[in-house]
Amino acid sequence: MTATSFDTNRARVIAIAADLFARNGYHGTGMTELGQAVGLGRGALYHYIGSKEAVLYAISKDQVDKMNSYAEELLDQGLEAEELLRQMARGLLRNIAEHRAEWAVFFREYTALTGEWRDHVLTARERYEGYWRQALSSGVRDGVLRKTPPLLVKGILGMLNYTYLWFEPDGKLSPDEVADMFLDALIEGIRA
Amino acid sequence: MTATSFDTNRARVIAIAADLFARNGYHGTGMTELGQAVGLGRGALYHYIGSKEAVLYAISKDQVDKMNSYAEELLDQGLEAEELLRQMARGLLRNIAEHRAEWAVFFREYTALTGEWRDHVLTARERYEGYWRQALSSGVRDGVLRKTPPLLVKGILGMLNYTYLWFEPDGKLSPDEVADMFLDALIEGIRA
Repeated sequence: MTATSFDTNRARVIAIAADLFARNGYHGTGMTELGQAVGLGRGALYHYIGSKEAVLYAISKDQVDKMNSYAEELLDQGLEAEELLRQMARGLLRNIAEHRAEWAVFFREYTALTGEWRDHVLTARERYEGYWRQALSSGVRDGVLRKTPPLLVKGILGMLNYTYLWFEPDGKLSPDEVADMFLDALIEGIRA
Repeated sequence: MTATSFDTNRARVIAIAADLFARNGYHGTGMTELGQAVGLGRGALYHYIGSKEAVLYAISKDQVDKMNSYAEELLDQGLEAEELLRQMARGLLRNIAEHRAEWAVFFREYTALTGEWRDHVLTARERYEGYWRQALSSGVRDGVLRKTPPLLVKGILGMLNYTYLWFEPDGKLSPDEVADMFLDALIEGIRA
């Protein structure tokens, strides 16, 4: 078996698991059920994913990691603060729209993660918040935005994250348009 | 048994169930476990709550109903829009701070509700969103706020609701202060 087919199979198992967990809950989904849904026996299933908690970890961590990489790329581009914030918001909403099941599972179930897995996810999550604070600070430094309490970032992320609950992929607004609508309100509200 | 002691016992069962569901998931908590936690046998437990889904319904519905009553009272007072929005935000954050387990269960688990129960909770929820839209519209009518897309309400509620995940009752900021911090940013951003 090549590395590629292992990765492809693993990714398929994780995507199907995300749908099952989103529908029936992490605790409400058994490994037998997951095996049936992906058409793999117990042995093959464990080969790809190791354990149920490992799947929850992968579901949670993959998206947060993607968002961190995306934020790092944007921060490296030296964009001015408003553009940076808009791009970060658009990237997050595009990702949530594409991976609603994964984000639903992450927000609802990450508390079921234990030990190092939980720590890793929380650390990655804090890094992401840090990038938002950095973006806001760059705006303050450039004299474009007023100084705001650090906790405002949690409000901004709440605004954006919560879309996993209601965003309609076939609705009137695209993820970019929803992001812009929110940022239109926010940026005016925190302008210097 | 008087009506009062029935209600008190039922409320106690629901509060303990909220903690258990928040910690171990709705699907991950059995009625036997709940019975042990509240110190009631199967018969007495069913007497107070009927079914596990009835508990989830009560947990979800009670808080949303309280927020609807609170919003209705405020809307009746004829406050000017900015004050109205601030009071609504403060009331919600105070309630979330006091009932974090209930809100965690509601946001994570309401999809497990079926049939009429689910419909009732979603309808109550939509009514609450409607009150926020009403408050924003009153500001537009009075020439204080600019007209914003209806979906902005979902962003505002995301900002506020998401506090169930991070608000620290012993932290530096009170629920009112967090609400004001968010509203400071938002109201400036949507001023006419």
